[in-house]
Amino acid sequence: MSSLQIKVYKKNLDHTYCLGASNLLELFRSDKLNFLQKIIISSKADNGFGISEILHNCKKYNIEVVHNDFLVRKLSLKENTYVVGVVRKFFTQLESYASHIVLVNPSNMGNLGGVMRTQLAFGCRNLAIIKPAADHFDPKVINASKGAIFHLNIQHFDSLQEYYEKFLESRRFFTFYLHDSTDIRFVDFGTNNLSEKEVFQLSNSYVFGNESSGLSQLDANLGCRVKIPQFDDIDSLNLHVSVGIALWEVLRRSKNISQT
Amino acid sequence: MSSLQIKVYKKNLDHTYCLGASNLLELFRSDKLNFLQKIIISSKADNGFGISEILHNCKKYNIEVVHNDFLVRKLSLKENTYVVGVVRKFFTQLESYASHIVLVNPSNMGNLGGVMRTQLAFGCRNLAIIKPAADHFDPKVINASKGAIFHLNIQHFDSLQEYYEKFLESRRFFTFYLHDSTDIRFVDFGTNNLSEKEVFQLSNSYVFGNESSGLSQLDANLGCRVKIPQFDDIDSLNLHVSVGIALWEVLRRSKNISQT
Repeated sequence: MSSLQIKVYKKNLDHTYCLGASNLLELFRSDKLNFLQKIIISSKADNGFGISEILHNCKKYNIEVVHNDFLVRKLSLKENTYVVGVVRKFFTQLESYASHIVLVNPSNMGNLGGVMRTQLAFGCRNLAIIKPAADHFDPKVINASKGAIFHLNIQHFDSLQEYYEKFLESRRFFTFYLHDSTDIRFVDFGTNNLSEKEVFQLSNSYVFGNESSGLSQLDANLGCRVKIPQFDDIDSLNLHVSVGIALWEVLRRSKNISQT
Repeated sequence: MSSLQIKVYKKNLDHTYCLGASNLLELFRSDKLNFLQKIIISSKADNGFGISEILHNCKKYNIEVVHNDFLVRKLSLKENTYVVGVVRKFFTQLESYASHIVLVNPSNMGNLGGVMRTQLAFGCRNLAIIKPAADHFDPKVINASKGAIFHLNIQHFDSLQEYYEKFLESRRFFTFYLHDSTDIRFVDFGTNNLSEKEVFQLSNSYVFGNESSGLSQLDANLGCRVKIPQFDDIDSLNLHVSVGIALWEVLRRSKNISQT
């Protein structure tokens, strides 16, 4: 691939771009390394954070390194990005016997990447995305995920119904609403006697609606309706924060949490 | 003010822009209405969400309405913004006898606005910002706050020390770190026997560091060190999510939460 063929990201490309050293180091730490096609590096990279580790890894794993200031600038979102990874798109499958975050029609790239980051921080490694949805391979999403995308199992479905039918057996569904639902503090997720490592091994699905429209009332029939209580002063909690609080509420009840 | 004098937002302007109908409606619902100087509206606004309510309010409160497609387009962040409020900058003071969120050097506008939105959703109405910090009047921040900025008391300080000395008396400080701190579940915020309305009336300060660098070790001397436990797989929880989980952890222990 000559450097001239490298185009600004579009959804229909078979590859995406991982921007910046810290996101790239997450890729090196993951099992997705074989999807890294090449590294493009700017002369401004110098001895910046992570650069020597990245160059060392490229040598070790025989990954091509292209020096091209113009290309780095063209592909970057921010001025201070000095290294870009060209990553072939990869597809993963959800684990059947584990907890899933289910995002129905997430439309905001920052939220989508942010949810990935937060679920990984809490050890919940499976994400179902119900289409239509923001393109999860967009470099903006990868960037917002802080590289968490390389550590998760992510699978797309055409409808919540399709997901539901596929994973129906022995799985409990919790659907998040703003109103007319059980206060999350009084919901039994079945996790209270589990250890921190086991909490997200349970076959629970935590289902969140679109940023603007939420879940439909029909979706409520799938399982237990849950709400995070809040005052009525403003719109509502942001999607990313709602997922964070929900996961925390599940995790905090476990028997023991690592003293990191 | 002729419409030609309306410039793209810069920090040194004495006014800012409130973009979109839902943010403007929050301004109308707040006590900051007297800072609204005029409304600029696009011909594309038609009968879109909130437009008739905004026009009704402008008539009622004698606020100038300018029709100018070009200006709306020039000031907007998104294509689907059809109404813009010109808002004179306003300054508020923290309540001494209430809880404060303290953000030390927040640099990301999305985080800063997001924190405002989340703290209002949970009823915590005071925000201290330690400089240097992102410009909290930037339209991007107002937009990320979903208009919460109009309902909060926000005050700037040159250093955490300055804030600390001003509010030292009868105030408890909780400083958030990633490591070497007490698991938030075992921290007594003194709020457990309070009602949901009283929880953030307590003179507590919840102090969070910069997105990249966190709080300095010196800052720990100010009060109780707290951490939100998480796995070490990735960077850390995002600032906005950390504040959300901390506020939830305080609020969830209160005696009763509104069934909204």
